[in-house]
Amino acid sequence: MSTENGKPKTENPQLISSMKQFLSVHDVPDLSGLVQEALRQKQNPFGDEHLGHHKTIGLLFFNSSLRTRLSTQKAAENLGMKVMVMNVTADSWGLEFEDGAIMNGNKAEHVKEAAAVIGQYCDIIGVRSFPTLNDREKDYSEEVVNQFVKYAGRPILSLESSTRHPLQSLTDLVTIEEYKTKPRPKVVLTWAPHVKALPQAVPNSFAEWMNVADVDFVITHPEGYELAPQFSGNAKVTYNQNEAFEGADFIYAKNWSSYREYGKIINSDPAWRVTTEKMALTNDAKFMHCLPVRRNVVVDDAVLDSPNSIVIHEAGNRVWAAQAVIKQMLTAIR
Amino acid sequence: MSTENGKPKTENPQLISSMKQFLSVHDVPDLSGLVQEALRQKQNPFGDEHLGHHKTIGLLFFNSSLRTRLSTQKAAENLGMKVMVMNVTADSWGLEFEDGAIMNGNKAEHVKEAAAVIGQYCDIIGVRSFPTLNDREKDYSEEVVNQFVKYAGRPILSLESSTRHPLQSLTDLVTIEEYKTKPRPKVVLTWAPHVKALPQAVPNSFAEWMNVADVDFVITHPEGYELAPQFSGNAKVTYNQNEAFEGADFIYAKNWSSYREYGKIINSDPAWRVTTEKMALTNDAKFMHCLPVRRNVVVDDAVLDSPNSIVIHEAGNRVWAAQAVIKQMLTAIR
Amino acid sequence: MSTENGKPKTENPQLISSMKQFLSVHDVPDLSGLVQEALRQKQNPFGDEHLGHHKTIGLLFFNSSLRTRLSTQKAAENLGMKVMVMNVTADSWGLEFEDGAIMNGNKAEHVKEAAAVIGQYCDIIGVRSFPTLNDREKDYSEEVVNQFVKYAGRPILSLESSTRHPLQSLTDLVTIEEYKTKPRPKVVLTWAPHVKALPQAVPNSFAEWMNVADVDFVITHPEGYELAPQFSGNAKVTYNQNEAFEGADFIYAKNWSSYREYGKIINSDPAWRVTTEKMALTNDAKFMHCLPVRRNVVVDDAVLDSPNSIVIHEAGNRVWAAQAVIKQMLTAIR
Repeated sequence: MSTENGKPKTENPQLISSMKQFLSVHDVPDLSGLVQEALRQKQNPFGDEHLGHHKTIGLLFFNSSLRTRLSTQKAAENLGMKVMVMNVTADSWGLEFEDGAIMNGNKAEHVKEAAAVIGQYCDIIGVRSFPTLNDREKDYSEEVVNQFVKYAGRPILSLESSTRHPLQSLTDLVTIEEYKTKPRPKVVLTWAPHVKALPQAVPNSFAEWMNVADVDFVITHPEGYELAPQFSGNAKVTYNQNEAFEGADFIYAKNWSSYREYGKIINSDPAWRVTTEKMALTNDAKFMHCLPVRRNVVVDDAVLDSPNSIVIHEAGNRVWAAQAVIKQMLTAIR
Repeated sequence: MSTENGKPKTENPQLISSMKQFLSVHDVPDLSGLVQEALRQKQNPFGDEHLGHHKTIGLLFFNSSLRTRLSTQKAAENLGMKVMVMNVTADSWGLEFEDGAIMNGNKAEHVKEAAAVIGQYCDIIGVRSFPTLNDREKDYSEEVVNQFVKYAGRPILSLESSTRHPLQSLTDLVTIEEYKTKPRPKVVLTWAPHVKALPQAVPNSFAEWMNVADVDFVITHPEGYELAPQFSGNAKVTYNQNEAFEGADFIYAKNWSSYREYGKIINSDPAWRVTTEKMALTNDAKFMHCLPVRRNVVVDDAVLDSPNSIVIHEAGNRVWAAQAVIKQMLTAIR
Repeated sequence: MSTENGKPKTENPQLISSMKQFLSVHDVPDLSGLVQEALRQKQNPFGDEHLGHHKTIGLLFFNSSLRTRLSTQKAAENLGMKVMVMNVTADSWGLEFEDGAIMNGNKAEHVKEAAAVIGQYCDIIGVRSFPTLNDREKDYSEEVVNQFVKYAGRPILSLESSTRHPLQSLTDLVTIEEYKTKPRPKVVLTWAPHVKALPQAVPNSFAEWMNVADVDFVITHPEGYELAPQFSGNAKVTYNQNEAFEGADFIYAKNWSSYREYGKIINSDPAWRVTTEKMALTNDAKFMHCLPVRRNVVVDDAVLDSPNSIVIHEAGNRVWAAQAVIKQMLTAIR
């Protein structure tokens, strides 16, 4: 099973990058190399099984998860790791994050202890923690994930934090790489309506990654839904969804709540829903979404069920993205 | 650990059957062969450990489970598989099952996506989903498990669906095979009282399996508790419990709610409880129950704690039944 | 991976003790040998990986757990075992523990069946169950864990029961062994304030272990917080916390509710909080706590964040303590 007698087949002599944490695109030393690594893992899922031998990853969920939960577990196991999954609040204790708190309320344990203790048991720690959507400053300070970085003493892997979802964004870039039919495709991130106020993590992160990838990137949303400037960067932004769709090679749909009027739903215009008519404006674009998706609210059945929808394939790629990242983290702690 | 150099000891040259799904007895090409396979797995639990190498089973629970949860996990691990367990509603998202729904309620994801995505991560998917007991047509259409079959793109293993519990029924048949003292034993399924309205899945499924097994099968229950005709089939049915017990070799007790007055408790007569006096009418019958069982409501302590009670042994056989089934599913996807 | 060709490096020819259960210090045939075994496991975590091959441990949680959950899982996996974790109430059924109960209430399954069935699937069973804090006699009879011992037919490992937490106490002894600077250090168990009524399990168990270890053991608490006599034994007990701290080498802080006025908070005097000033009375003592700990209620930030705090190291040792215990249990069932 392990490969003590020789190099594993997938070993790439050029790949020397490693990552001590994976919280954003800024942690990636070689973006193109990481995408290629994910595609190599997809070709040979068990080629690096020796790397994780006798290593343990802890996956901590403060919030719901389907794709991230299963794909990261699968990725770690493909790399030969042991996996310990914990729904933090349900399985263990309510955590306190405030420094200097007098803990006489309903939080039984401080993150200082919890993170450090979990660091005693795990070689890598994955953390999922959604934003409050009430306190913009707190959410954008990434208190939870940053305290794990500070106190765990182990590499931290974001499983979606308050403001970013980097495993999703890497997956999206890998998927675009697989489906693109021209060197520099037009990629459109479009806001779409929703019944609940949702985090900005996925669009923030997608924008952050697209801004450094070799794509023609456009963001379209109603007025008032501007992403935080550090995420939208130099992307083209338009309030005209139809104009944005024209000639697009990839439509990436996602709802998010307002950053300006923080956490609020300030528009629920169904005209922003992605329909067959709108898809007809594109260059036969592929339809992408991180899932879960509200059918006939965010996007019509006809689009999701069309051959141009690649959302399931995209979700499948979550494994290979996670596997590439964990591989580089394992390399860093060898 | 694996047996690449030779045939594993348990290999049965006659066994060529394989199963692409396991939802009912109708999916079993060779019933007697499957029972024998379970008994072989029991003799040699790790003899087929190579079969599941690098394969993953996902076990999805929409409802509580003890025996099914642990025995199926154990079976899959004995076969060398990786296991990912998920309590769907608690761990991930509320699922929508209606086709064409405008998803503006409290369901965040459609089964079309959820099933297909889980299919990206798992080679076999087990699903437990209880009936509503409100809507007979919906329950008997097996909406949940059938949508997983339709959309997951992977073999589906029922961990108990709205109307059937085939892993339990196979276990029961294996247990009867072990304990029978004559070629064609008399097997009696008896209704018993309960304080809650329970599904018909276990008795439906038990009847379905006994009707094709080589046993003399009798069902006894109060008037109004008739099972759906497609399950009771040609079984002898009597409202006279004492008459049914006479000469029985196996008493299989179970409560269920009414099929006719769907999901209702229409009788709670304690006279239907299984007692030592009633067991004395039998041919020294073994007492069986799928568990969990309400002591002194369904059956007296004196019966459950007697040497003729084989309920724990029966529960232990859940591992070997699951192992036989998963082995045949692995064979199908090789 | 396994060591069929030779003895594993850590094999200690003197070690012949084995344990059929681990509920208290009374189950340990050789206390010093067990401490040394834990330290050996720490030096060579995978040296006994062959021992657990094809063995399964079930970890059953009736209550929250972080350290015990993860460290026991890690320990079992280091020993090559498969691990099945179950949150009993959430994942399966409410359990009845009363003998002879007519089960027409909200408990769906009796422990007689549940324990015996889990025993069919697991080679060793770990159980965590907190006390009611309402019914002293019931709690101190250790009903839950004792019924698992009685009915499971498998070795039972306490993951903290109503009145004891032996894995924690062994960890504490191992940690004291590592940090002590004299043959017979002074170890002080001090009560500290808390906002919730907590079990006596940790202080009971700590006292029980310290009373047989080679340490100078002192307990200090406010009047009315006397531990049950069978646990405090011959330990020195004082109501004067300052006096107790004088010359101490280890301060072990913990809140507990009253045994006398059972389960009640009868004192919440903040003067009992462990502070830098109090630590200054000691012989440069190390600060210990089982965690989770309420910062600035039980102990000040300044103490927990000082170099003398060894709480994280202590929590890390949970793995090696569990590994030593499970190793001896595996030896017993070979």
